[in-house]
Amino acid sequence: MLRQSLRILPLICAALLGACAVPHATDSTDASAPIVLQSQGSFAVGGTVVQSPGTYALGKAGPDGQTLHGDHARVVYQIPVNPRKLPLVMWHGFGEFSKTWETTPDGREGFQTIFVRRRFPVYLIDQPRRGGAGRSTVAARIAAEPDEQRWFNMFRLGAWPNFYPGVQFSKDPEALNQYFRQMVPDTGPLDNKVAVDAVSALFQRIGPGILITHSYSGGLGWQAAMRNPAIRAVVSFEPGSGFVFPEGEVPATMSSLTGPLAGTAVTMDQFQALTRIPIVIYYGDNIPTEPSSDPGLDNWRVRLAMARLWVDAVNRHGGDAKLVHLPDVGIRGNTHFPFSDLNNLQVAEQMQAFLSRAELD
Amino acid sequence: MLRQSLRILPLICAALLGACAVPHATDSTDASAPIVLQSQGSFAVGGTVVQSPGTYALGKAGPDGQTLHGDHARVVYQIPVNPRKLPLVMWHGFGEFSKTWETTPDGREGFQTIFVRRRFPVYLIDQPRRGGAGRSTVAARIAAEPDEQRWFNMFRLGAWPNFYPGVQFSKDPEALNQYFRQMVPDTGPLDNKVAVDAVSALFQRIGPGILITHSYSGGLGWQAAMRNPAIRAVVSFEPGSGFVFPEGEVPATMSSLTGPLAGTAVTMDQFQALTRIPIVIYYGDNIPTEPSSDPGLDNWRVRLAMARLWVDAVNRHGGDAKLVHLPDVGIRGNTHFPFSDLNNLQVAEQMQAFLSRAELD
Repeated sequence: MLRQSLRILPLICAALLGACAVPHATDSTDASAPIVLQSQGSFAVGGTVVQSPGTYALGKAGPDGQTLHGDHARVVYQIPVNPRKLPLVMWHGFGEFSKTWETTPDGREGFQTIFVRRRFPVYLIDQPRRGGAGRSTVAARIAAEPDEQRWFNMFRLGAWPNFYPGVQFSKDPEALNQYFRQMVPDTGPLDNKVAVDAVSALFQRIGPGILITHSYSGGLGWQAAMRNPAIRAVVSFEPGSGFVFPEGEVPATMSSLTGPLAGTAVTMDQFQALTRIPIVIYYGDNIPTEPSSDPGLDNWRVRLAMARLWVDAVNRHGGDAKLVHLPDVGIRGNTHFPFSDLNNLQVAEQMQAFLSRAELD
Repeated sequence: MLRQSLRILPLICAALLGACAVPHATDSTDASAPIVLQSQGSFAVGGTVVQSPGTYALGKAGPDGQTLHGDHARVVYQIPVNPRKLPLVMWHGFGEFSKTWETTPDGREGFQTIFVRRRFPVYLIDQPRRGGAGRSTVAARIAAEPDEQRWFNMFRLGAWPNFYPGVQFSKDPEALNQYFRQMVPDTGPLDNKVAVDAVSALFQRIGPGILITHSYSGGLGWQAAMRNPAIRAVVSFEPGSGFVFPEGEVPATMSSLTGPLAGTAVTMDQFQALTRIPIVIYYGDNIPTEPSSDPGLDNWRVRLAMARLWVDAVNRHGGDAKLVHLPDVGIRGNTHFPFSDLNNLQVAEQMQAFLSRAELD
């Protein structure tokens, strides 16, 4: 019986593909298994249109009467076959774009492919004025100023030229080459409202989903979640700024070697939106509790401390927020990019366990 | 027998996926069938590193001694299961990036997904200083000057606000919204050598493949193919400039409403590289043979005329180049973007037939 089936299988499988083989193929954590998609694509969402005064005339030079569509987000999506209900919407941090979630600097699969394999629809964002969402309605100058040794430190790979001991980043020079090249400049002034507007417009378009933020988009993510109830949960990797507190409950400004870190006051009404969804925050390793003379370390010391106060505030008002400092659960050596570090599959397990406990998968 | 097989099929298919169902699934022109990939990812390739004078010191502000990795191309790839031998490398035109080949402005599949479905490995390029390859080693200003009515005309959608009759572009306003938003600015000076260097480095990395160019990258594509024998064929959609001729054979400069169009002299040695590979050029509709008062039409009149002289030159020296003016083969209404027009599946058939005739598939 089995042998007979094997002979006719290619024909039958081709005919019945949607019903039989495919759903099994996509629920996989094995990077050598096929990736099976129902569909994939990209689109722009949100944004605005500006128009120059005057009248456009065919063949006349100059902007008179012409339009510019800009300040949208760019979105790339993949929908696996037999998808889970809620999509993951992944939003990069400062100086980065959707690449954050793609192939890791050392060439392994990033969170985009890892979670598509686990049957989550995945949407990657380029926020307005970044990467493929480059059309800005406001002019800007790109300085091309060398700054990578500072990022090496701020992203907690180490203190140039030394890696921190045990850091989860490949020592192959090509990994660092790829890592530096995944940065992109702002093509217009960095504008939080423009960014949050576009991401909220994305959830308006696709409906309920789970927002994954990183670093600078952490603070923007709280803004988006306060605005749009289609954001059903937030997973925030190393949020770096923009912690919102109810008026009257903003903690004292913290100071570090990289400057002051202040909370942002919002109305209790706004804040309460954040108490109605599950939230998890992850921080990596090499974040001290005491002041450090290493700016990269000291910068994240106050951010982790502020995040702890923030989680307390959310939960004090009836919320469901959790902070996971990865070394506390035995996951060590992570940089500012836990989702692309050498142990990113372990980090993915953490995130999927959170989604599972919150019944979001 | 069939009924029995159906019952055990899910198990067998899951077990034998690589051997049975998957190869059939990917060789499909049906947009409702699953897309089955062996792998996907992204990387930076080529580029340079600049370093500021001075010494970097931890925590000290400013560029002293710091590096900037820039001027690379960004590449996104998908390898289908059971892939054809030669990958397609798709290179966007002026003001565009990899989005050119993704979802069409009206929301259908573009050449990326169409050809992955047909089992071609597909690589999409963002050329240096564009889109996700935004890190430039040279500073630049982004003007944010409204210019879309001019592009509406230059890309041969029509003479604003009117579409050309029968044009293969959706009249749904959202299609035009998406179309305008797929443009991105240069994040550094447009530099042909920098772009060709990075694309040549890509072929160095991935080995033999077929280069697909569009508009501005048409001319850069000849440069890349003269440099790198790993480029085994070129498919060029509406090349707009940079036609290379052997010294002494450069045709007279042509003039149009949008300015002069001159050929570029190269050595006979360089030129002969282009006679050793199959080349096809496609142009769409609404390109007149006589001068026109519509700049969009007149611009492409001279480009099509120059391309004809170019194909003649290649073939005169023993090459295998062909120019297909799509209306001549009954395919009408195409804009400057035939691969994303409403009839792009018909255009894909043309391209695949070329690859098949040249035994490149």
